[in-house]
Amino acid sequence: MKEQLVKVYKESTYKLSGHGPRNLEVLKVALDKIEDASYADIYGKGEVIELFEAKMAERLGKEDAVFFPSGTMAQQIALRMWCDDRQIYRVAYHPLCHLEIHEQDGLKEIHTIETVLLGEKNRLFDLADLKAVKEPLAAILIELPQREIGGQLPSFEDLLAITDYCRSNHIHTHLDGARLWECEPYYKKELEEICDLFDSVYVSLYKGIGSLAGAVLAGTEAFTTDSKIWKRRYGGDLISLYPYILSADYYYEKRKGLMDHYYKNATALARRFNSLDNYRTVPLIPVTNMFHVHMAKSNNQSLENLMAAMEISGIGVTAMVINRENEGGFFEVSIGDAYDEISDESLAKLFEQLE
Amino acid sequence: MKEQLVKVYKESTYKLSGHGPRNLEVLKVALDKIEDASYADIYGKGEVIELFEAKMAERLGKEDAVFFPSGTMAQQIALRMWCDDRQIYRVAYHPLCHLEIHEQDGLKEIHTIETVLLGEKNRLFDLADLKAVKEPLAAILIELPQREIGGQLPSFEDLLAITDYCRSNHIHTHLDGARLWECEPYYKKELEEICDLFDSVYVSLYKGIGSLAGAVLAGTEAFTTDSKIWKRRYGGDLISLYPYILSADYYYEKRKGLMDHYYKNATALARRFNSLDNYRTVPLIPVTNMFHVHMAKSNNQSLENLMAAMEISGIGVTAMVINRENEGGFFEVSIGDAYDEISDESLAKLFEQLE
Repeated sequence: MKEQLVKVYKESTYKLSGHGPRNLEVLKVALDKIEDASYADIYGKGEVIELFEAKMAERLGKEDAVFFPSGTMAQQIALRMWCDDRQIYRVAYHPLCHLEIHEQDGLKEIHTIETVLLGEKNRLFDLADLKAVKEPLAAILIELPQREIGGQLPSFEDLLAITDYCRSNHIHTHLDGARLWECEPYYKKELEEICDLFDSVYVSLYKGIGSLAGAVLAGTEAFTTDSKIWKRRYGGDLISLYPYILSADYYYEKRKGLMDHYYKNATALARRFNSLDNYRTVPLIPVTNMFHVHMAKSNNQSLENLMAAMEISGIGVTAMVINRENEGGFFEVSIGDAYDEISDESLAKLFEQLE
Repeated sequence: MKEQLVKVYKESTYKLSGHGPRNLEVLKVALDKIEDASYADIYGKGEVIELFEAKMAERLGKEDAVFFPSGTMAQQIALRMWCDDRQIYRVAYHPLCHLEIHEQDGLKEIHTIETVLLGEKNRLFDLADLKAVKEPLAAILIELPQREIGGQLPSFEDLLAITDYCRSNHIHTHLDGARLWECEPYYKKELEEICDLFDSVYVSLYKGIGSLAGAVLAGTEAFTTDSKIWKRRYGGDLISLYPYILSADYYYEKRKGLMDHYYKNATALARRFNSLDNYRTVPLIPVTNMFHVHMAKSNNQSLENLMAAMEISGIGVTAMVINRENEGGFFEVSIGDAYDEISDESLAKLFEQLE
């Protein structure tokens, strides 16, 4: 059944999520616009990389920013540096933090940093969860939005309370902003106001922005200078990073103004899922461009119905229904440019078919 | 004087070393040949990456190979894995090994692996140097050719003696093949015969091959499988690596057959330097496409002469004269495609001017 779902998804004309296929075309389109082929960076130096880093620093309201090949690398390095700074090798984050579940335990295996899981898997953590931690902490990582629970966001007041508490208690604050761009419409704030609550900020360039790969780590100049030493240690200081930087810049400019559009599409689409008996979104009203769709029943019969609806409407809803402990089946939806390709008629067909 | 040399070098029409500017053009040329824009890899999977890895494994005569964003990452991971395997956190290598002098001590800072320096800075190490190590070693790293001393190579017999000793003494052998392709003409052996002496092999794709960036780590399937876990931990398992892979494949095919050509050009050019009083190459007769040029005098007068010769001939000889302890000034020459652009007349002019 799993493989059949992948097949139906792949063969569907339209996709509910994303910006289209992640292939060579994405790079070619970005490069085609660049007439001057003399662009180059070398080991983190050169206009190509420095101008982009300056642009990111300004947008995030930080002194400086560094381009990294990946967020995995950038975030481990940020946390390691905060641990070195405090001489405490313990950090706290959500139980479904990327570092906890997707990085082969890099933080623990590479840096022997201990982790404290805040709150419970299926909800955001709050100040009370943090106050319950009795061991000294070097840093806390807050992911905005919390991807693994459908992209939920704390209120700005809750965020303020948590980061204020950290400041008073000498706990460094790191923002996992893998989908930070996507938060702006909900908070109705400039990103720099959000980033100002944090000592260090990571943003990704291939999710909402939809570039090839790449990440940015921002903070004070002292922080970013040290982070470049770690970037070299990790082997992330490539002789040429320009394919990622040039395309990141292109797609950043293309999509930075579209986050509200994606967000509105997400809320409208979530409403349609919630009008069905078997489907319920988490959060019920999305706060970014993404949400989870939980199925009350995800047995063979309901999966057959989902696949039939995908085939009839031509819309690839998902390639994978996840079953997590104590939860029914669910899948992730993350709205991007691909959604704009779908006609109202096709969408109507999809929701007529879904039971 | 330093900055003036850089300026004269940059402004010179031709360059003695390299394959031309490392800029966007390099990528564009490689991608232009690819008509199918649906190429993609995702987190280390997909035909693009798997076919290239298989090609590298076959060429190096190893069971399997893994593409890495950088050699720094690949080699630290190889040594860490050999240390874990032996439960000994100590490795040995040349005093001017890349890991010792160019990686901000990643091996020590990230993995707390101790290093033993074999022999002396200005020569290759040999079996006697290795036998002199009394502490238990998990692994030895051998760099072929030894870049920081002009690209010297041990004889195949010496190499055999060292690696045999390691095998008998349960010391893992890792090949730092940053410039391995470039060794083939000298050893007159297939690369796989050289690689067969080693448990693990790293090769680079942007030196002799002249691609953008990227490296390959090869070994048994068990070894490469584990290395992928570490690649994920390091943040090297990017969602898209295709810009590097597609261009690596293009330039590999373009230049794999040219190593003998570069080597012959290097030996001819070295002869010309050695015919001058103030210049002597190390090695005296190059064994790869590279060598160092030592200046008996590297005072202002001789540097002025070097710059004048560069200006008159239009040939950028070097942008940097290095002064290492107990050595006079020297610079590196590394022959690639750029050398073919230089006319015999220009070369003659250069050597007429040099004193």
